[in-house]
Amino acid sequence: MTAVHEALARLSLVDHHCHGVVTEDLDRDGFEALLTEGGRWPGSGISPFDTPVGVSVRRHCAPLLDLDRHAPPEEYLARRAELGAREVNRRFLAAAGTGTYCLDTGFGPTELAADDVFEVVRLESVEEALVARGVEPDDYADAFRAAALRAVRRPGVVAVKSVAAYRTGFDLDPARPSAAEVERAARERLAAGGRLADPVLVRHLLWTAVDLGLPLQLHTGFGDNDIRLHRVDPTHLTDWLHLTAGTIPVLLLHCWPYQRQAGYLAAVFEQVYLDVGLTLHHVGPARARAVLEEALEITPFRKLLYSSDAYGLAEFYRLGALAFRRGLGELLQDRVDADELSRPDALRLAEWAGAHNARRVYRLTGPS
Amino acid sequence: MTAVHEALARLSLVDHHCHGVVTEDLDRDGFEALLTEGGRWPGSGISPFDTPVGVSVRRHCAPLLDLDRHAPPEEYLARRAELGAREVNRRFLAAAGTGTYCLDTGFGPTELAADDVFEVVRLESVEEALVARGVEPDDYADAFRAAALRAVRRPGVVAVKSVAAYRTGFDLDPARPSAAEVERAARERLAAGGRLADPVLVRHLLWTAVDLGLPLQLHTGFGDNDIRLHRVDPTHLTDWLHLTAGTIPVLLLHCWPYQRQAGYLAAVFEQVYLDVGLTLHHVGPARARAVLEEALEITPFRKLLYSSDAYGLAEFYRLGALAFRRGLGELLQDRVDADELSRPDALRLAEWAGAHNARRVYRLTGPS
Amino acid sequence: MTAVHEALARLSLVDHHCHGVVTEDLDRDGFEALLTEGGRWPGSGISPFDTPVGVSVRRHCAPLLDLDRHAPPEEYLARRAELGAREVNRRFLAAAGTGTYCLDTGFGPTELAADDVFEVVRLESVEEALVARGVEPDDYADAFRAAALRAVRRPGVVAVKSVAAYRTGFDLDPARPSAAEVERAARERLAAGGRLADPVLVRHLLWTAVDLGLPLQLHTGFGDNDIRLHRVDPTHLTDWLHLTAGTIPVLLLHCWPYQRQAGYLAAVFEQVYLDVGLTLHHVGPARARAVLEEALEITPFRKLLYSSDAYGLAEFYRLGALAFRRGLGELLQDRVDADELSRPDALRLAEWAGAHNARRVYRLTGPS
Repeated sequence: MTAVHEALARLSLVDHHCHGVVTEDLDRDGFEALLTEGGRWPGSGISPFDTPVGVSVRRHCAPLLDLDRHAPPEEYLARRAELGAREVNRRFLAAAGTGTYCLDTGFGPTELAADDVFEVVRLESVEEALVARGVEPDDYADAFRAAALRAVRRPGVVAVKSVAAYRTGFDLDPARPSAAEVERAARERLAAGGRLADPVLVRHLLWTAVDLGLPLQLHTGFGDNDIRLHRVDPTHLTDWLHLTAGTIPVLLLHCWPYQRQAGYLAAVFEQVYLDVGLTLHHVGPARARAVLEEALEITPFRKLLYSSDAYGLAEFYRLGALAFRRGLGELLQDRVDADELSRPDALRLAEWAGAHNARRVYRLTGPS
Repeated sequence: MTAVHEALARLSLVDHHCHGVVTEDLDRDGFEALLTEGGRWPGSGISPFDTPVGVSVRRHCAPLLDLDRHAPPEEYLARRAELGAREVNRRFLAAAGTGTYCLDTGFGPTELAADDVFEVVRLESVEEALVARGVEPDDYADAFRAAALRAVRRPGVVAVKSVAAYRTGFDLDPARPSAAEVERAARERLAAGGRLADPVLVRHLLWTAVDLGLPLQLHTGFGDNDIRLHRVDPTHLTDWLHLTAGTIPVLLLHCWPYQRQAGYLAAVFEQVYLDVGLTLHHVGPARARAVLEEALEITPFRKLLYSSDAYGLAEFYRLGALAFRRGLGELLQDRVDADELSRPDALRLAEWAGAHNARRVYRLTGPS
Repeated sequence: MTAVHEALARLSLVDHHCHGVVTEDLDRDGFEALLTEGGRWPGSGISPFDTPVGVSVRRHCAPLLDLDRHAPPEEYLARRAELGAREVNRRFLAAAGTGTYCLDTGFGPTELAADDVFEVVRLESVEEALVARGVEPDDYADAFRAAALRAVRRPGVVAVKSVAAYRTGFDLDPARPSAAEVERAARERLAAGGRLADPVLVRHLLWTAVDLGLPLQLHTGFGDNDIRLHRVDPTHLTDWLHLTAGTIPVLLLHCWPYQRQAGYLAAVFEQVYLDVGLTLHHVGPARARAVLEEALEITPFRKLLYSSDAYGLAEFYRLGALAFRRGLGELLQDRVDADELSRPDALRLAEWAGAHNARRVYRLTGPS
């Protein structure tokens, strides 16, 4: 193992965007449904295990369950059930070597045992809870702001998040909507119910994030089929980034296949940061380095963060951390070997990306 | 040769999308015009041989004509003429090692000598033949459907194809057009003549494909300069894929430079498949692996198919098969060598992509 | 050193698009501001040295200032100041090994000492100088054409350039605007002042370039945050390229992250050429090859040119030339080693890309 790989292996990662894990035992259907962004396709004969992430689970997670590498799915699931969710989760979380988590609590299973857990408030969830409780259109803006303030003032909250990518995409009018526009849109939304998807209200949500003053995480690129991928190229945010320059940090999550575009924004806007997030476990160690290479082509080294975006399966904590450590380690070590980068610089960049950059942006304690 | 390369070398490929070869002898102009998607540029001093595909022809096809590797274009063309089209075609088709062809009969030279040839019906050709024969606007929809049904009921037809990418691109209203809309658009189209390019009628064609119930091949990405490349990012089809979920398989052809976007769709929609098609011979063995790596980053292994998209020159059958076998072989073998993939899995994935997946989708005989 | 690397090392490059260097001494702020497309971010704690280009400067430029490789920024800047701008510029320009420059004189510092310097006229500068001098709306078109003609008829002018990418992006109506449209748009523009950014007048500028008959350089892709990256995918120019086929050469500059799209246009339009320009020094030797691999996937070998797009810092002449020579050298040599390309072909392609192609397009003397 080289110096860079060793440093990354030792490094206690800051996972600046992740979700909780399922704490009950999962049957095959339940496991497979969480394994893929595509859902299960019963009767298709296509198993979620026959994917890059499925191959990675069998290769890198099976040994942690005392199985051979590349164990068949049946064996894997049987052993997982035998050990029980509690023990399985314990093993994978320990193997991840993550010291600090910033947990998106807006959606899905939220149990996570760790020493150092911070919270990310999903603003769409705040808004939808407000709408479910009931609010008048002319009070919508104030009530949303108040609810968001209440949410972010709880202890441990370090950031907010938006899934605008899923709701409207990024091809939005960048300007802050007027109070009259918001009220009119709220009237329609409150009558219609359902999810927040009105472009005026999504803009209002993003501008409310600016007012809150906390770093804003934005889902970007790859996700499930609710995404319209061509509408979530983050460069569509350019005008909004101009208007909000000097306010809050903006963290572009996942980004694939737009990691180069995200890198461009991070290079030319002071407030923009990025990670490759759930891309890491979906492409696996075989391709994590290639994706990181593109993400880092022009990105300032202070701007790349680590996240697992693990959701549901504790395996993803393990795989994300492994793919990040190995991918970034190979990238940096090869540059050291080619004398393109000094070893001290490589070690510094590894620590920045794996932990320090996140601690700076979120003002966590520890070296940054 | 490694186990994976050997398995791929032995594998009788299913080429699920290709065209016929020219059966008469070609002079230099004729050969060069078929060598490139750009056409010849007489007087420019720029030879179609001075391209990646030209270099590949000289490297990998010359030896099959008993010439040295990297033979000059003049020698190559002279020897090709000396042997005659029949012998040349025989040699390249034999070298391809393809056992099954699905042949797009809608356009261009269609002679192909092979044991196992199936047919793909190009729906634009069906429509344009109908328009040429004459039809009333109020009968257009019924007559098109009837003609398409007649076309696909002939023996050996396994799929339909659309070149909507060339005509309108994919940024279409996803909804099935109403009968009134179709009649109105047909009235204008029948008055104007020419190619099918009206967005309403292209949508009608795609929905007619759904009704036919056969797998639908869609040209995607790279082609000649009739394409507007920014309009053929396949993720523009997302809403249409939602509406047509549960109906027909959709096979995205070529995809370059949108292979990652195509992979995303294949990962999140049960019905979506992809190949990298004519990209293989255009980028050649030097880059086929890189393109396949991107195409496979998140794609389920049941979703990648092989096609040559060979058109006109039998060389393309040879080059496509070679680039696919070598590119996929290197990709898989390196993962086996890095212990990221087990050897049995690698062998299985190779057979799936090279043959079995196509046999499943098109319900051909043989292992799938 | 291999034969290909040697040939590229010996080759006197034609840098077909670059800017002048600052001839006075630079303090840290001045240097850092030129080092990045993102500008300095005072108080952020993020140094422009902590970027891929910053790492490359310390690695590859420090030794030319008699420092150790990877010298710290402070040492680098101190030594740079000690030597003085004149000596520093002399050393880097000598190290670049560039024999011929085509210099964009439209913007920024323009001093460049070289034997063989040609000029590229930036048409936006011509237009803005005209507007600053004053012109009547009904005379705008004639006066602009006359001013442009005067500018290009000066000795040494070999091309024109447009930064339409910065002003409107490429999603423009491709048609030549009518005289009435131009006059109307000019009336508004002249009343409003400022930069040329009206879509009608940008189209008019591009069509005026066609009339001038000289090669047209188009900024494409990556630049500072004035760019809306999603609007500068060059395939948006497809209709305009159809309309202008048979007229002037069009040279797509930089292109990242759209180098594949640029390659597509170069493959299917006789008049289209490309470089990867400022991408070279921004991504550095560590990634220049990867970007060139994509740029060359389907690009005819007569269509790739070299440019540094050096601006302000003489370091960029050094880094661009180094990254190009090394990146292209590795790409070609590996293909020779894999017997995918003959050595004589590799040597020919290296000379074409590094010098001959530019000499052909711009009709410079010397081998082409």
